[in-house]
Amino acid sequence: MPRSIQLNSRGELTHLLSTEGLPRAIVLDILSHAKDFLDLDQMTVRNADLLAGKSIFNIFFENSTRTRTTFEIAAKKLSADVVNLNVNASSTSKGESLLDTIDNLVAMRADMFVVRHNQSGAPYLIAKHVNQVAPHIHIMNAGDGRHAHPTQALLDMFTIAHYKGDFSQLRVAIVGDLLHSRVARSDIHALTTLGVPDIRAIGPQTLLPSGLREMGVTPYTSLAKGLADVDVIIMLRLQNERMRGAMLPSPQEYFKHYGLTEEKLRLAKPDAIVMHPGPMNRGVEIDSAVADGAQSVILSQVTFGIAIRMAVMSILNRAKS
Amino acid sequence: MPRSIQLNSRGELTHLLSTEGLPRAIVLDILSHAKDFLDLDQMTVRNADLLAGKSIFNIFFENSTRTRTTFEIAAKKLSADVVNLNVNASSTSKGESLLDTIDNLVAMRADMFVVRHNQSGAPYLIAKHVNQVAPHIHIMNAGDGRHAHPTQALLDMFTIAHYKGDFSQLRVAIVGDLLHSRVARSDIHALTTLGVPDIRAIGPQTLLPSGLREMGVTPYTSLAKGLADVDVIIMLRLQNERMRGAMLPSPQEYFKHYGLTEEKLRLAKPDAIVMHPGPMNRGVEIDSAVADGAQSVILSQVTFGIAIRMAVMSILNRAKS
Amino acid sequence: MPRSIQLNSRGELTHLLSTEGLPRAIVLDILSHAKDFLDLDQMTVRNADLLAGKSIFNIFFENSTRTRTTFEIAAKKLSADVVNLNVNASSTSKGESLLDTIDNLVAMRADMFVVRHNQSGAPYLIAKHVNQVAPHIHIMNAGDGRHAHPTQALLDMFTIAHYKGDFSQLRVAIVGDLLHSRVARSDIHALTTLGVPDIRAIGPQTLLPSGLREMGVTPYTSLAKGLADVDVIIMLRLQNERMRGAMLPSPQEYFKHYGLTEEKLRLAKPDAIVMHPGPMNRGVEIDSAVADGAQSVILSQVTFGIAIRMAVMSILNRAKS
Repeated sequence: MPRSIQLNSRGELTHLLSTEGLPRAIVLDILSHAKDFLDLDQMTVRNADLLAGKSIFNIFFENSTRTRTTFEIAAKKLSADVVNLNVNASSTSKGESLLDTIDNLVAMRADMFVVRHNQSGAPYLIAKHVNQVAPHIHIMNAGDGRHAHPTQALLDMFTIAHYKGDFSQLRVAIVGDLLHSRVARSDIHALTTLGVPDIRAIGPQTLLPSGLREMGVTPYTSLAKGLADVDVIIMLRLQNERMRGAMLPSPQEYFKHYGLTEEKLRLAKPDAIVMHPGPMNRGVEIDSAVADGAQSVILSQVTFGIAIRMAVMSILNRAKS
Repeated sequence: MPRSIQLNSRGELTHLLSTEGLPRAIVLDILSHAKDFLDLDQMTVRNADLLAGKSIFNIFFENSTRTRTTFEIAAKKLSADVVNLNVNASSTSKGESLLDTIDNLVAMRADMFVVRHNQSGAPYLIAKHVNQVAPHIHIMNAGDGRHAHPTQALLDMFTIAHYKGDFSQLRVAIVGDLLHSRVARSDIHALTTLGVPDIRAIGPQTLLPSGLREMGVTPYTSLAKGLADVDVIIMLRLQNERMRGAMLPSPQEYFKHYGLTEEKLRLAKPDAIVMHPGPMNRGVEIDSAVADGAQSVILSQVTFGIAIRMAVMSILNRAKS
Repeated sequence: MPRSIQLNSRGELTHLLSTEGLPRAIVLDILSHAKDFLDLDQMTVRNADLLAGKSIFNIFFENSTRTRTTFEIAAKKLSADVVNLNVNASSTSKGESLLDTIDNLVAMRADMFVVRHNQSGAPYLIAKHVNQVAPHIHIMNAGDGRHAHPTQALLDMFTIAHYKGDFSQLRVAIVGDLLHSRVARSDIHALTTLGVPDIRAIGPQTLLPSGLREMGVTPYTSLAKGLADVDVIIMLRLQNERMRGAMLPSPQEYFKHYGLTEEKLRLAKPDAIVMHPGPMNRGVEIDSAVADGAQSVILSQVTFGIAIRMAVMSILNRAKS
């Protein structure tokens, strides 16, 4: 991911496609802006009219009511007009190409596209294209294939900053199916950018990608060893299709080795926080006692996610084309 | 349905789950508020900005475009932001539990949930849960299984009050498949609360629930006898699955015995009104001449339904958590 | 299509159902109003609050995300409340009749219906019905069967006026499957009304309707002959079901004879414009070099389409019932 595609010639954020290559100053700016939309005492989100009169299109080539909803709420809380497009059911089924679809939506005079696609790189392709034909339009990646999910990573960083303050002393473990996880990739890039010195990947050998060490991540196949003294545990969702696949024996077997139980959580620091991007498979990757326990900050992540998306939208809206 | 779950400690309505146990004063307050949103001369609905900046989530676990639309319009006429969620297609298909889904939607900082579910009691379960984790959120039941459909009952009461004035002298007949009808249950509770002295249930023995007499309702298996001298006739929709089931011989046979024709309508009082919650099966439970006739108030019910939902939303919004 | 159904007793446009019979003055008024919503230098669309507090229902009996989106954006840019209804999935599947569905939506107090239906004449039937029961409601046809697609024709006229100025000297060719095309029908009526002296229909004999000459259109089965010296080329989409049908040998064969290539485009005037209602089948009815070439105005059509729909909505809203 070249840095330039996300930034305009003035160095302003004009698309959010990935946390890879995202400058530290911009990450910190997003985290700081998100705070403006939160009342942290009451854990409520403030409305603003920063995007009044702007049209935001949620273009979902892959269905995800939950993620679409978070972007829809963020946009509406900023007073934008929101149009939801489930593109599977539409033009692509009529044989229209991705870029023809995008050209048409550009011509409908949108101001921002939130794009979810099951193929890695699709939002990048769209950003490159709109830079040529409609540089005033901003692209937000809402998850593309196995590649990136930058708003999830940013809300994860906000969560860590909220509960842990300083990044420079932290031990962070990411647990589960890192091989197929866009959340894990985006988290690793953001954690690295923010200077986390000890990032760990924990999972069965078959679900750990190669090249982790090159990214500055230490792989562990033992949950017990990997969790030792960590400050932050990011659990990943085990996709249903993996559970039935050849890479894993069974959900029960997986839980036995990599499920986060209260007993295993005790191996981390006593004040370690437990995170999960949702939706959870209780009893597969995480035990209910942990998911609902005192160290879980999973629901705070969701609230912070609204504020993070508001922050990104308002920062993109500020950028000159 | 315990009274307390719908009311807060000050006795204000904080959830609307059922007309059962709903205090008479609150029913009357809703009916009175609904009037504020109507211009009855022109049968139009007034806009208001009472819910500006509030987020209302239509959470439909059971699909119903018609009902969802009435709540969506009511919310938009109050200037609220509306997010529609068809949850079948989403998280629950990913194996997430109902309460995990609700926890996530709560964390997205909604102010009100409109819930439709094919299982009786689901909105009650949700209300109980949000009372613990997010007492500022209000739940409106938009129909749960065979249990309750309180906004339908309230708009039915508004309709009766509009055309008949006083409840204390009325004879009201509910005709059809009362056994499976949440509308009938909710209507009976509301009619009882409002002091209707003569409530009748008319239908084939197989479609009349037991325990009617305990609820103060007189069962009739003869339409002719049941309709004698009534002021109000509430026809129920015969669900398609019932028509093909073992409980009924055929739609034609049903119409012959329980379909409301002009001839049978003459057995009621000359100024009796005919109601139906829609959508109608013309020629099954009701003859077109009656549905479109001078005594039919079926379409007024729909207009009143918008105002009733606006009234309930604005009353819930007023309640302190 | 009788003239009276689209106009009220004062001669104002009260429904837009077809360009057939639409008075020239009204067509020109719509084109002129659309200009008010456009900044043509920047090709942007202006917001306005002309429909604030109004409810527009997009009632789509036939799914079309693209068309629905253009109406939704137009309405939102006019500050209206928009409710999307996909009616296949709803009441009609419960056996409710079309007019019962409409009666219910009328009773929900909508101000305008945008109707898409796979049966020719459905919006006309609806307009006739609301004229009796709710004359304040305006109907916009968003495409009905093979009959009409008036907003597409109006945006096509806007596009031609924008690039060509005067209609009275033009040669316009419509190319492709005119037999099944509601766009072609609506375009022909609009072009005729606006006084275009030379309208041509080009396609294989099997896809040209009879009666073209009676409509003032000259049929051509040779693309080369038909394109000679034209100012405007309107390409039609070849529906997928036609390609597999008995009327055509194959998409490749079709492209060979009727696909618009750069070579064939040279037969038209040097400044001829190329139009297409979208979505395009590249390599079937149109070559990519032409679709993306200097003479293509296909994406401008989309932008103009937003302004045209805003113009129609605001003109309908002005009409007295």
